[in-house]
Amino acid sequence: MTTTPSTERRTVLPIRPELAGEEPYGAPQLDVPVLLNVNENPYPPGDDVVATIADEVTRAARGLNRYPDRDFPALRQDLADFLELESGVRLTHEQIWAANGSNEIMLHVLQAFGGPGRTALSFAPTYSMYPEYARDTHTAWVAGRREADFTLDPQAAAAAVREVRPSVILLASPNNPTGTALPTATIEAVCEAALTVDVDGTGAPAVVVVDEAYAEFRRAGTPSALELLARYPHLAVTRTMSKAFALAGARVGYLAASRELVDALRVVRLPYHLSAVTQATARAALRHRESLLAQVDALRGERDALVAWLRARRHPDGRPFVVAESDANFVLFGTFGDRHAVWQGLLDRGVLIREVGPEGWLRVSVGTPAETQAFKDALTQVIEPDSEEA
Amino acid sequence: MTTTPSTERRTVLPIRPELAGEEPYGAPQLDVPVLLNVNENPYPPGDDVVATIADEVTRAARGLNRYPDRDFPALRQDLADFLELESGVRLTHEQIWAANGSNEIMLHVLQAFGGPGRTALSFAPTYSMYPEYARDTHTAWVAGRREADFTLDPQAAAAAVREVRPSVILLASPNNPTGTALPTATIEAVCEAALTVDVDGTGAPAVVVVDEAYAEFRRAGTPSALELLARYPHLAVTRTMSKAFALAGARVGYLAASRELVDALRVVRLPYHLSAVTQATARAALRHRESLLAQVDALRGERDALVAWLRARRHPDGRPFVVAESDANFVLFGTFGDRHAVWQGLLDRGVLIREVGPEGWLRVSVGTPAETQAFKDALTQVIEPDSEEA
Repeated sequence: MTTTPSTERRTVLPIRPELAGEEPYGAPQLDVPVLLNVNENPYPPGDDVVATIADEVTRAARGLNRYPDRDFPALRQDLADFLELESGVRLTHEQIWAANGSNEIMLHVLQAFGGPGRTALSFAPTYSMYPEYARDTHTAWVAGRREADFTLDPQAAAAAVREVRPSVILLASPNNPTGTALPTATIEAVCEAALTVDVDGTGAPAVVVVDEAYAEFRRAGTPSALELLARYPHLAVTRTMSKAFALAGARVGYLAASRELVDALRVVRLPYHLSAVTQATARAALRHRESLLAQVDALRGERDALVAWLRARRHPDGRPFVVAESDANFVLFGTFGDRHAVWQGLLDRGVLIREVGPEGWLRVSVGTPAETQAFKDALTQVIEPDSEEA
Repeated sequence: MTTTPSTERRTVLPIRPELAGEEPYGAPQLDVPVLLNVNENPYPPGDDVVATIADEVTRAARGLNRYPDRDFPALRQDLADFLELESGVRLTHEQIWAANGSNEIMLHVLQAFGGPGRTALSFAPTYSMYPEYARDTHTAWVAGRREADFTLDPQAAAAAVREVRPSVILLASPNNPTGTALPTATIEAVCEAALTVDVDGTGAPAVVVVDEAYAEFRRAGTPSALELLARYPHLAVTRTMSKAFALAGARVGYLAASRELVDALRVVRLPYHLSAVTQATARAALRHRESLLAQVDALRGERDALVAWLRARRHPDGRPFVVAESDANFVLFGTFGDRHAVWQGLLDRGVLIREVGPEGWLRVSVGTPAETQAFKDALTQVIEPDSEEA
């Protein structure tokens, strides 16, 4: 007999079996001159935005001994006003919800409408966090497939909904990491199929979530799913202030939907989940919406130029690059026999991009003109090693 | 045949059955002169604290286009330093975790160690949100009983652990809404019993969480469970900046535990859950820890005086008030045949307290001397209606 077993026992923790050995999610955060790996907006908030944030947070700080407003109607109204400016769709503040990043929004959605015995359906390749949200809420996860060009066939999507009978359907548009936006007809087809699901025999449709984290970057003429909200009470559109508003550090995601869908999320949110400081910061940034949207316009131009430049590149064997259509602030390109070598070659030259998506592809975020040039120079050196000596 | 069924169908949502008809949690937020209902610190951050917050947030705002540091070692070190100052217990930053309020901390704990097929155990009367955290993570909820004086018998608690075999045990100390702190021996007894649980046959002990949201207000000589951390890797102590730091609006809760327990929470946290603005605000307030702790001392004095005053009161029938021992910034007192009438009578006089806890009791937060006086005056009028004419 030895004392080892009891000692060992005391160091074991009852972590859930599906989490054992898992690593915390996240792209590597490396200290590199050119960061084009997590689709951040390359432009820091301007002095005017910083000054407004400082003013609003100072005001909020004087009352921080009190709990924040749990329902934050003022911020929700500001977000509704922004959506009207951006998309022409008018909503009330009761149709808006907000949380610490759109990932907390997704958590609320899956807590309210997913969970044990239920299934979430999406279409791969898509955002790599979705299966983790499902895992963390004990929701089964099924990923259908997108086409080879990353579009989604409406009939195939509707058939998958009828077959899988999920309670939640997640559609990213523009999709991450491919940049692909969905046509209205595809979202309509999914919403109609969702009506037939009959969740748990209650007659309820599946909830359809269109993740529009990158919507502000969509090309002219690309629709937003916001336009469908009036027709589908089971549709939700999520947005974020991380990208277009250059506010990734402030963690503000939001959702637009029918009032009854928003009210369901209010039941599962933790009380006081959105701090008074976060509310103040978000409202301050929203006061600068016109100038921030102008900056988005510049980034869209930069993105289109980057897509064109990549399409003109060739692999050493003469094959042209394949470059996915992008309505986002990033571009997926390839395909490389050894994408990791290309990623590493760029990193060695001070440019961090993301090794993500289908095998052989790489994703680069749209940076400032100088950052984009650094990326182009580095990629040219990696792809055409001879040019390094030139 | 009519079209009604299909119309009805489109307005139904697949909300989980256990959530259907539920109302969002929260104490009423009423516009009343004297707010003594949610145990807030009555003192707003001073000008010096506000100025430091403004400075730090301004600095953070200049980089808000970037995601925040996912692991925030600087804030975790500041929190470890504070705990050493407050309790004399030295911990490393890897032993600290933080989130948007201690309710998000509890969510992380139950996501990592609770969940379907598992049980959380606590002892009532206790914090009314615990069953909701359990519900939202699909963890079964069992509440044992505290004694009539709201203490917890160590043998009874250990027996409950052995019988229920929970994977998580929640002990609030000082307890909300009763104010009762647990002696070290009781927490030891529960930690030892937790070692015998053998969760899911893996040999793992239950995780014991001591919720010390109000610990800074404990009376001299009352121990903190922090002192037991070195002995029990399955023990976690949660704290908050909402109360002692007068920072309820900023939503910063934190946890101290073994490094392996903290690492398990890192797997279930949403990526970038703690914003750069929140990190900056918390660090700014922590720089003023000495002056904020001095304020806590004043509140403890105010609390003790309020307990003594209440103990000297009598009901109209001559019975003395019963007043629970309090190591927190609130006092539970009673008992009233119609507590709602007393609560309403106070509200009619501009004083909002909380109708919470066992039937017949009321809870009042410790306010400023002026707020406490307003409460005393109003209560005197309500209890002794004749004095109103005096």
